[in-house]
Amino acid sequence: NSKLKIFALNSNEPLAASIAKEMGVELGKSSVKHFSDGEIQISIEESIRGCDVFIVQSTSAPVNENLMELLIMIDAVKRASARTVNVVMPYYGYARQDRKARSREPITAKLVANLLETAGATRVVLLDLHAPQIQGFFDILIDHLVGVPLISDYFSQKGWNSEDIVVVSPDHGGVTRARKMAERLKAPIAIIDKRRPKPNVAEVMNIVGNVEGKICILIDDIIDTAGTITIGAEALMKSGAKEVYASCTHPVLSGPAIERIDQSVIKELVITDSIQLPEEKKIAKIHQLSVSKLLADAIVRIYENKSVSKLFD
Amino acid sequence: NSKLKIFALNSNEPLAASIAKEMGVELGKSSVKHFSDGEIQISIEESIRGCDVFIVQSTSAPVNENLMELLIMIDAVKRASARTVNVVMPYYGYARQDRKARSREPITAKLVANLLETAGATRVVLLDLHAPQIQGFFDILIDHLVGVPLISDYFSQKGWNSEDIVVVSPDHGGVTRARKMAERLKAPIAIIDKRRPKPNVAEVMNIVGNVEGKICILIDDIIDTAGTITIGAEALMKSGAKEVYASCTHPVLSGPAIERIDQSVIKELVITDSIQLPEEKKIAKIHQLSVSKLLADAIVRIYENKSVSKLFD
Ligand SMILES: Nc1ncnc2c1ncn2[C@@H]1O[C@H](COP(=O)(O)O)[C@@H](O)[C@H]1O
Ligand SMILES: Nc1ncnc2c1ncn2[C@@H]1O[C@H](COP(=O)(O)O)[C@@H](O)[C@H]1O
Repeated sequence: NSKLKIFALNSNEPLAASIAKEMGVELGKSSVKHFSDGEIQISIEESIRGCDVFIVQSTSAPVNENLMELLIMIDAVKRASARTVNVVMPYYGYARQDRKARSREPITAKLVANLLETAGATRVVLLDLHAPQIQGFFDILIDHLVGVPLISDYFSQKGWNSEDIVVVSPDHGGVTRARKMAERLKAPIAIIDKRRPKPNVAEVMNIVGNVEGKICILIDDIIDTAGTITIGAEALMKSGAKEVYASCTHPVLSGPAIERIDQSVIKELVITDSIQLPEEKKIAKIHQLSVSKLLADAIVRIYENKSVSKLFD
Repeated sequence: NSKLKIFALNSNEPLAASIAKEMGVELGKSSVKHFSDGEIQISIEESIRGCDVFIVQSTSAPVNENLMELLIMIDAVKRASARTVNVVMPYYGYARQDRKARSREPITAKLVANLLETAGATRVVLLDLHAPQIQGFFDILIDHLVGVPLISDYFSQKGWNSEDIVVVSPDHGGVTRARKMAERLKAPIAIIDKRRPKPNVAEVMNIVGNVEGKICILIDDIIDTAGTITIGAEALMKSGAKEVYASCTHPVLSGPAIERIDQSVIKELVITDSIQLPEEKKIAKIHQLSVSKLLADAIVRIYENKSVSKLFD
C-alpha cells in the first residue's frame, strides 16, 4: 500500500493538526509564504512520491486567498508525483452561488468545482454543502459528510426529555436537515415561515408547528450575518418557546454576527470547527464541537478503500 | 457582424476606460461587489447575447482577489451567451513561477493559464510576458503584445544622438528585449553581468559593453522591489556612465521599491500603465506611458479578424 500524508494550509491549521492527531500521524512538511508582491509561494518539504496526499483547507474568509492557496498546493502535490490528490474541504466557499438567481450571474460554486479538478484534485471530501446538488458539479469522486449526528449528540447529552424539545428549521430550505436532527432526538419539528404580504411591507414570521413551553433547537448549515437565526429565535420566544438554542455546521459569522448573537435571546450557539473561529469571536454563548474525528475517520476509510457512507450508520 | 463589448474589472479601471475612449465606445455595465463574508458578487447589467466581449483585468496585487474576480467574470460572461470571451490581461500575475526552480514546487503560471481556459476564456491578449514560453501554456488563442516600441519612442523624443546612448539589460534574461530597443534607437547594447565568485561572497557586477560617458537606458519587463535595477544603475555610474535612465513595462513596485528608486542614481523611470499606480507611488522621477492605444488597436484587430502582429510592423 502507498503512504498516507496530510498537509495543512492556512485557513484552518488547528483542525488539520487535530485530524492528524486523531490518526496518530504527523502533518506533512510544507511552506506557504508570500513574495513581496503578495503572490503565494508554496513548496513541499518532504518526498510525497507515490503517496496518497490529503490537503486540509476550508475556503472560508479570506476566501480568494484560501482558494488560490489550495489550487497552487494541488498543483505542487500533483507535480511532486503523488499517487492521489485528495482535498478535504470542511467548508466550501461560494456554495451559495449555486444557481443563476438573476440573469447574467455566474455560478461560482460550479466554477470552484471545475477549478479544483483542473488544478489536479482527484477526490474531494466535503461537509454539509449548502445545497447537496453541488455534489453533481464535480466529475471527480466526492464524499459528502454530515454534521447533524455530531450536533445532535451534543444536545442529547443535555439529558432533556424528548417531549420537551422541538427542532426548528429557520427556513423552508433547511427542513430536511431539521428532520434528520429531530429523528436523532426523537423530537417533533417546527418551521419558521417568512412571508412578505405585499412588496415593501415587512416580513411576517409565522411558526409552523407547536413550540409553546418547549426548548427550541434551531439548526442551519451556515450562520453568516446571523440575521435569520436571531430574528427567528425572537419569533420563537414570542410564540411561547421556553428557551431557544441554535446550531450550525459552518460558523461564517461575518459582519454584525457576533454582536447580534450576543444580544439575542439565543441561550447557546453550537457550531463546529469547519471554519476556524478567531479569538475575538469566541464569546461565552458559543460552544464549538470538532469535526476532526469525523474527518479523520473519513480519510482513513478513503485511504483503506472502504465506504465512507458507513460512517453514518 | 456581432457587437463588441468591453468590461472593466477592479485592478485597472482607468486603463479600461482609456481603451474604451480610444475606441469611441462606452464600457459595459457590470457590478462587482462583495458579500458580507468577502465572497465576490458579480452581475452583468446589460445584454451581451451573441457579443464579442473583452474583459480588461491585470492580475496585479491583490493578485488572488483580482484573479478570482476575473475567473468569476469569465464564468458570468460565458453563461450570458457571449459569442466570444476575450481576456485582456496587460499584466499576467504569477508569470515568474513558470518552471520548477526547485523540487516539489508548483508551476503557477501554467495553473493560471489552465484556470482561465476552464472558466471559459476563448482568447487572451497578453503584454510582455516574463517568459515568452508562457504563450505555450495556453491551448486557446493568445496574442502577445510588446511594450518596447512605446517605451523606445518615448526615449527617441528626447532628441539624443544615437552615439551618446547605450541600452542596458539588467541581466542575461533580458538581452533580447534590450536588443529590440537598441535596434529602434540605433544604439549599442550593454549587459550587467552578476557573478558570485564563491558561495556566501557578495555578488560582483561586471558591465559587458562600453558605457563610459554614455546615457544608459536600462530596460526590464518587471520592476518589483527595484533591487536589481537600482544596484545596476549604480554599477553603471561607477563604470563611467554619464546618466542612467530606467524603464519597464510592468511597474509591480512592491515593498521598498519606491524608496529605492527615489534614492537611487536613476534620473527617470519610465513605466507603462499595465499595472495601475496608486497615488502614493506617483513620485516625480516616474513617468508613465499608456498602453491604451496599443490594446485598443489589438482589440479592434481581433474583433475585425485581422492580424494583431501587424501592429508591430
Ligand atoms: N456569500 C454570500 N453571502 C450572502 N448571500 C449570498 C452569498 N453568496 C450567494 N448569496 C445569495 O444567497 C442566495 C442563495 O442562498 P439560498 O437561497 O440560501 O440558497 C442567492 O440569491 C445568492 O445571491
Ligand atoms: N512574485 C515573485 N516575486 C519574486 N520572486 C518570484 C516571484 N515569483 C517567482 N519568483 C522567483 O523568481 C524566479 C524566477 O525569476 P526569473 O529567473 O527572473 O525568471 C524563481 O526562482 C521564482 O522562485
